[in-house]
Amino acid sequence: MAKENQFVNQIADIETDFPRWYTDVVTKTKLVDYGPVKGTMVIRPYGYAIWENIQKELDARIKATGHQNAYFPLLIPYSYMTREAEHVEGFAPEVAVVTVGGGEKLAEPLVIRPTSETIFGEMYSKWLQSYRDLPILINQWANVMRWEKTTRPFLRTSEFLWQEGHTAHATEEEAMEETMKMLGVYKEFAENCLAIPVFTGRKTEKEKFAGAVATFGMEAMMHDGKSLQAGTSHYLGQNFAKAFDIQFLDKDGTHKYAYTTSWGVSTRLIGALIMAHGDQRGLVLPPVVAPVQAIIVPIAAKKEGVLEAAAELKAKLVAAGVRADCDTTDNSPGWKFNEWEMKGVPVRIEIGPRDIEAGKMVLVRRDTHEKTEAPLADAADAVKKLLAEVQQNLFDMAKKRKEERIVTAETVEELLKGVEGGNFVKAGWCGCRECEDKIKEQTAATARVIVEGEHAEKCVCCGKEAKEVVLFARAY
Amino acid sequence: MAKENQFVNQIADIETDFPRWYTDVVTKTKLVDYGPVKGTMVIRPYGYAIWENIQKELDARIKATGHQNAYFPLLIPYSYMTREAEHVEGFAPEVAVVTVGGGEKLAEPLVIRPTSETIFGEMYSKWLQSYRDLPILINQWANVMRWEKTTRPFLRTSEFLWQEGHTAHATEEEAMEETMKMLGVYKEFAENCLAIPVFTGRKTEKEKFAGAVATFGMEAMMHDGKSLQAGTSHYLGQNFAKAFDIQFLDKDGTHKYAYTTSWGVSTRLIGALIMAHGDQRGLVLPPVVAPVQAIIVPIAAKKEGVLEAAAELKAKLVAAGVRADCDTTDNSPGWKFNEWEMKGVPVRIEIGPRDIEAGKMVLVRRDTHEKTEAPLADAADAVKKLLAEVQQNLFDMAKKRKEERIVTAETVEELLKGVEGGNFVKAGWCGCRECEDKIKEQTAATARVIVEGEHAEKCVCCGKEAKEVVLFARAY
Repeated sequence: MAKENQFVNQIADIETDFPRWYTDVVTKTKLVDYGPVKGTMVIRPYGYAIWENIQKELDARIKATGHQNAYFPLLIPYSYMTREAEHVEGFAPEVAVVTVGGGEKLAEPLVIRPTSETIFGEMYSKWLQSYRDLPILINQWANVMRWEKTTRPFLRTSEFLWQEGHTAHATEEEAMEETMKMLGVYKEFAENCLAIPVFTGRKTEKEKFAGAVATFGMEAMMHDGKSLQAGTSHYLGQNFAKAFDIQFLDKDGTHKYAYTTSWGVSTRLIGALIMAHGDQRGLVLPPVVAPVQAIIVPIAAKKEGVLEAAAELKAKLVAAGVRADCDTTDNSPGWKFNEWEMKGVPVRIEIGPRDIEAGKMVLVRRDTHEKTEAPLADAADAVKKLLAEVQQNLFDMAKKRKEERIVTAETVEELLKGVEGGNFVKAGWCGCRECEDKIKEQTAATARVIVEGEHAEKCVCCGKEAKEVVLFARAY
Repeated sequence: MAKENQFVNQIADIETDFPRWYTDVVTKTKLVDYGPVKGTMVIRPYGYAIWENIQKELDARIKATGHQNAYFPLLIPYSYMTREAEHVEGFAPEVAVVTVGGGEKLAEPLVIRPTSETIFGEMYSKWLQSYRDLPILINQWANVMRWEKTTRPFLRTSEFLWQEGHTAHATEEEAMEETMKMLGVYKEFAENCLAIPVFTGRKTEKEKFAGAVATFGMEAMMHDGKSLQAGTSHYLGQNFAKAFDIQFLDKDGTHKYAYTTSWGVSTRLIGALIMAHGDQRGLVLPPVVAPVQAIIVPIAAKKEGVLEAAAELKAKLVAAGVRADCDTTDNSPGWKFNEWEMKGVPVRIEIGPRDIEAGKMVLVRRDTHEKTEAPLADAADAVKKLLAEVQQNLFDMAKKRKEERIVTAETVEELLKGVEGGNFVKAGWCGCRECEDKIKEQTAATARVIVEGEHAEKCVCCGKEAKEVVLFARAY
């Protein structure tokens, strides 16, 4: 165990120095590295494989709800940004600007998309003619860029990868239905694929997307009790339709502005996974998105027949649809155990001469460290069953934390105490921006979402009548 | 048939005005639209679905040959471009430059990647330590930007999508083997998925990638006899290793520079598909990459049971893995036939009351317009068989054209006559740049690839001893 401890010691303590733990884990497991330009990241193969699994699962859901993928240009004329007043105010300060192309100064500066409502708007205005063309339901997987001052891999980087859906509808009702539908898709995806239970709800005016009528977000509780905004769905009303002239000829023969929505999740989700499930030994990846679901470690690998049996087992698992790999390096089994635990592989399979003789294998779960045995003849079913159990248990543990760590507050002092203790705090709010600002100033907590269907007497800050119950938390 | 002719007339004549035919087809079939920034394109859902199919097929091949995907940053410090002398000479004139970020002028200008050898080189230098770390085999799917003066959708756009593989190896032999292996992967993919036979071979010094020791390309013959460079694989020797200090400690205890390669194909392949297989009625898409493989057109759709039978047929085909759709719009069958022919759907299925009664369907191939019947009970197998036949026939037709349209030339006049007649021309070449330039000037043809294993007496241009046989063609 000496070796293991030595290894564990390379990762900062998860309880006392969570930010450093995060940095240690993302770099040591080779998920990511820092790019040469400040604030950029290189997503390394192990990290990108998680993103590919996220894409696969989410893309299927986006298509199943009737959307098609497309690709819109990276560069947007600067003037487009200025057409929607709130939008330019929100995004202009953080854009990267191209001023030179092909050796010449450009007549108009171009921004690298920080988000694509404007360029989708421009094209939709061109494509949309009649009510028969509606709804337009398009998604794209793309890179975007927002010039950030403080950056951390996956959580906040100047360039990141995401999907952004942009839809146009004939009526307010349909657009609102779409907005909520996609929020629901995100929630189901987060819970069933990432094993992360989330809070969903409307954002306050202060926290909403620049240019939206209303933003709905999903918030996930991290290991330290802070919140991470894991996805948003925006009801844009006619704001962008008016700014970009997205009109259609309706059944009644009159021209009307469309109602639009947009919604997105990004490589931030990888940060969410890490901080929701990780432990002192490193990553703990949910099987659905883990690049390697089962790692086979041969014991006494030089003994006759061991590597062959391991290879055969791997082939059997792969054929059954398990993402299995076999570590055939000449490192010691103990070193391999640590390495793959740090990398968060959900199930480790140990197989040595005695196991082979007895026709069995040893299975070790990453989440509970529980050891079991299973017959080799039944390998694929046993591993699949265990993977499903790990997936469920990760969700259950995260859900338990989420439920245990919600407190209520009647005063700003209580709210402060709550978030300092690593909790989400429910509190009444009068609805005014002044109180929201004051709460942030005094507690470093922000309004994450407005809680539906709950009631409070007084605003936690000013004591006046509460209009809403708000979920407050410190956030990434 | 009046309606059909009317429809066909909307597309320019393929024989007399191929460039206009191309533009008509890509826009009318909604593959693509022009972006607001000059030279950019919006890849619309129908076009993007082709790209997704290309990605799926090619990505599987890239992974099967041991490569992993990753994602490297979009922005590259300008100074990186200058480290490899040929590279900066080739790419600096066509980069887009970011000079402002977050409202402030940047200390160092950043280029939007025109290709990523430099930033991969920088990271490989950081990651690579020992020979045990080799080979490094990484690919990325990404957008790149090259500021082009004359642009055409898919063929030449300032921004395009591609994959770029970047590998590092311990020896020259291994790197060269990788270069040729990926050229082979591209060829197999082009022939079996895109149904496009290709010429592969080494490029001349003039035509090689800026910074490569040697470039190998694959060239495809288009409908008009011009060539399209459909993919390239570069052996970079130690050029980038030296420029970016990619060194490793070898078994013998000494530090050595690695040998690197890079290889890529792009959304140009969609242009290749269109121009290799298209006809007067529009697109003709190979089944392997067609977004819709079989379109069901209900006949007398208002008659009882027709739409139900069509829906049932669609469900059956989809369940069998066929990308099938059913056109339930209220357009006439004739209009639908034209529409889906223009969109290049490989197989059309007609189903009406009499067919349903007889338990059969009518199948119409897009490539030969041949009509056959098949029992509904056997629908999936019949459609799959027909799709395989269409795929094979498209390849055979393209191969026949490729073989028929190769001529040889002894003089520049003959070479000119050859390319003017829509041919590829094989000719001897002395190996000097002067002749290559002169040939281009006089014939508008360029050296596409050097032909292996063939011999010519004299250079087609200067008459001196020929060192190589070169395949000349006018090219996109």
